[in-house]
Amino acid sequence: MRTRAAVALAAGQPLEVMEVELDAPRKGEVLVEIKATGICHTDEFTRSGEDPEGLFPVILGHEGAGVVLEVGEGVTTLKPGDHVIPLYTPECRECPSCRSQKTNLCTAIRATQGQGLMPDGTTRFHMLDGTPIHHYMGCSTFANHTVMPEIALAKVDAGAPFDKICYIGCGVTTGIGAVINTAKVEIGSTAAVFGLGGIGLNVIQGLKMAGADMIIGVDLNDDKKEWGERFGMTHFINAKEAGDNVVSQIVEMTKRGDDQIGGADYTFDCTGNVKVMRNALECAHRGWGVSVVIGVAPAGAEIATRPFQLVTGRTWKGTAFGGARGRTDVPKFVDWYMDGKIEIDPMITHTLTLDEINKGFDLMHEGRSIRAVVVY
Amino acid sequence: MRTRAAVALAAGQPLEVMEVELDAPRKGEVLVEIKATGICHTDEFTRSGEDPEGLFPVILGHEGAGVVLEVGEGVTTLKPGDHVIPLYTPECRECPSCRSQKTNLCTAIRATQGQGLMPDGTTRFHMLDGTPIHHYMGCSTFANHTVMPEIALAKVDAGAPFDKICYIGCGVTTGIGAVINTAKVEIGSTAAVFGLGGIGLNVIQGLKMAGADMIIGVDLNDDKKEWGERFGMTHFINAKEAGDNVVSQIVEMTKRGDDQIGGADYTFDCTGNVKVMRNALECAHRGWGVSVVIGVAPAGAEIATRPFQLVTGRTWKGTAFGGARGRTDVPKFVDWYMDGKIEIDPMITHTLTLDEINKGFDLMHEGRSIRAVVVY
Ligand SMILES: [Zn+2]
Ligand SMILES: [Zn+2]
Ligand SMILES: [Zn+2]
Ligand SMILES: [Zn+2]
Repeated sequence: MRTRAAVALAAGQPLEVMEVELDAPRKGEVLVEIKATGICHTDEFTRSGEDPEGLFPVILGHEGAGVVLEVGEGVTTLKPGDHVIPLYTPECRECPSCRSQKTNLCTAIRATQGQGLMPDGTTRFHMLDGTPIHHYMGCSTFANHTVMPEIALAKVDAGAPFDKICYIGCGVTTGIGAVINTAKVEIGSTAAVFGLGGIGLNVIQGLKMAGADMIIGVDLNDDKKEWGERFGMTHFINAKEAGDNVVSQIVEMTKRGDDQIGGADYTFDCTGNVKVMRNALECAHRGWGVSVVIGVAPAGAEIATRPFQLVTGRTWKGTAFGGARGRTDVPKFVDWYMDGKIEIDPMITHTLTLDEINKGFDLMHEGRSIRAVVVY
Repeated sequence: MRTRAAVALAAGQPLEVMEVELDAPRKGEVLVEIKATGICHTDEFTRSGEDPEGLFPVILGHEGAGVVLEVGEGVTTLKPGDHVIPLYTPECRECPSCRSQKTNLCTAIRATQGQGLMPDGTTRFHMLDGTPIHHYMGCSTFANHTVMPEIALAKVDAGAPFDKICYIGCGVTTGIGAVINTAKVEIGSTAAVFGLGGIGLNVIQGLKMAGADMIIGVDLNDDKKEWGERFGMTHFINAKEAGDNVVSQIVEMTKRGDDQIGGADYTFDCTGNVKVMRNALECAHRGWGVSVVIGVAPAGAEIATRPFQLVTGRTWKGTAFGGARGRTDVPKFVDWYMDGKIEIDPMITHTLTLDEINKGFDLMHEGRSIRAVVVY
């Protein structure tokens, strides 16, 4: 079939909206009509050429929502008409990682996904001249139709609005999941969140759900104070003003009762800046503080600290897709949204057509959007 | 009273055995006759002058065992005749850290202990000319008699031999505790242990107790292979021969069944070398591997890695005194020794008199002892 897609022909170029060829789903695959997709920093990381593993031409996009149109041979858990969210972290429930019950990093199709291919080692997308177009993160939601493995699709409530729940396919799950799956924050905790973009705001709403007492947001931009408070932040630090004192400020703020040591019980880096990651670790509480790296650092960047920080009881962790098992947890997050437990609407600051997709990237660069969503 | 002690008069000097004055125990303090004490790398770290926080003159020594001779006012949990192990990490059961139940790093007397003083800010030890002598890690077991806070003494089985259980006051608890308290290793795990000195061997016996399937030891010295195997090591890597391949070798060795990712479930650094700490993290299994820093790094040294290592599911932790709550866990470890669950005797390779204490430091430097113990 033919469909319309925004194609990244080469690194650093704007996307080009064009007709492309899409093959029918093969064994274990599903044809999905994408109804909406968010535009994420990760797409930009690859589009810009910064991603050393970027492949071109490619159809980017990884936070979508849509409807199943057709299923390939052997597909048993989905049928035409089902509403789905694409998963860049699949959940096969059969590989050693899934079986371990200790990680969400399913390895069933990791190798081919990293090469921009379907599990059988080929692409479903082609230019009209036959040139193959790479898949992206196994999703390619910047196409009106895409083909995905069954294990990379979460079936969700058919009453949920596509233009909101598409964000559960990335930022919402990453932020809330980091709190509840990776850090496992308890009621009454203190927390610090570095970087109040979309991920940071979702960490904040996750912390609020988890019952944190004190939620300190840190950002370079004062405009983010209102945004943070909107989702449950209790204290704000302007990192530009605080400078090197940001760690000691957080340590002071988190002294409570007879605990005069201070430090946040849980800290989250949502910036991708390795110096901020260090600060996030070092303002965690001596003895038990847990710091979670969420942000993606530039290629080659390294985190560092004195090992004393760990020996005195701090734990350094990371999270991908919020530690969420996609087919299990994403439908639950959609239900929480429908029940009003989590908020998404105010974060979707801009809605665009596919033809306007490059404008979505501009809005992100200018820091004017929390999330811009393309609606097909 | 007067007692004999090995005094470190100045950084870098051999210890001098001499008579010193010891004041009576004050409120909340206990007079202990030390019967045996191990000589540890930490003592040498301070004696040599490498420790930037070292204070002189000082009576070193922190892994002892002895008998209570006299208790000060208000002491309720100990009486003369009780057998005790001094704790450089006390357990007050009342401070915010103890109450948290998330850490063993009691803070009740941290400030004064770090300054070489008793909790009231003074010393009990003096030279015969009246010059105060600093306490060390709140213990000072290189004196035949010492005064310690009640909260820093674990009451243990009176039938246990002092010259063996003194090692539970440091290396045994640190190594075994890192496995069972900090890493919480499960039956069937794979593990890698870097550095097969006393701590490493105790990590190995902890892993064996915890039911690990595969226990890989890594050391620069082939002689350590036999030592490792003696305590349960199943595989050995000579780090000098492996060079930069040590991570990939461990990843290969730990591939099991249909898990072709590889990496150890748990890894332990017992070297204090920050490059080794990085290797230990990076050979931990993607998705769930936990790496525990035990070794003490040189002042100012930093650990580093790419944040990707954390984001793909590895956890970096540290441990002090094996995460053990001294008054609760040390008596249990002594019982385990008495029941034959843990071995100590073969690790006590040398027994010395107090007058021979400097020889104990020489044996450690020459790598000829696992543990040299002074018996009073
Ligand atoms: Zn994303
Ligand atoms: Zn899987
Ligand atoms: Zn020691
Ligand atoms: Zn305490």
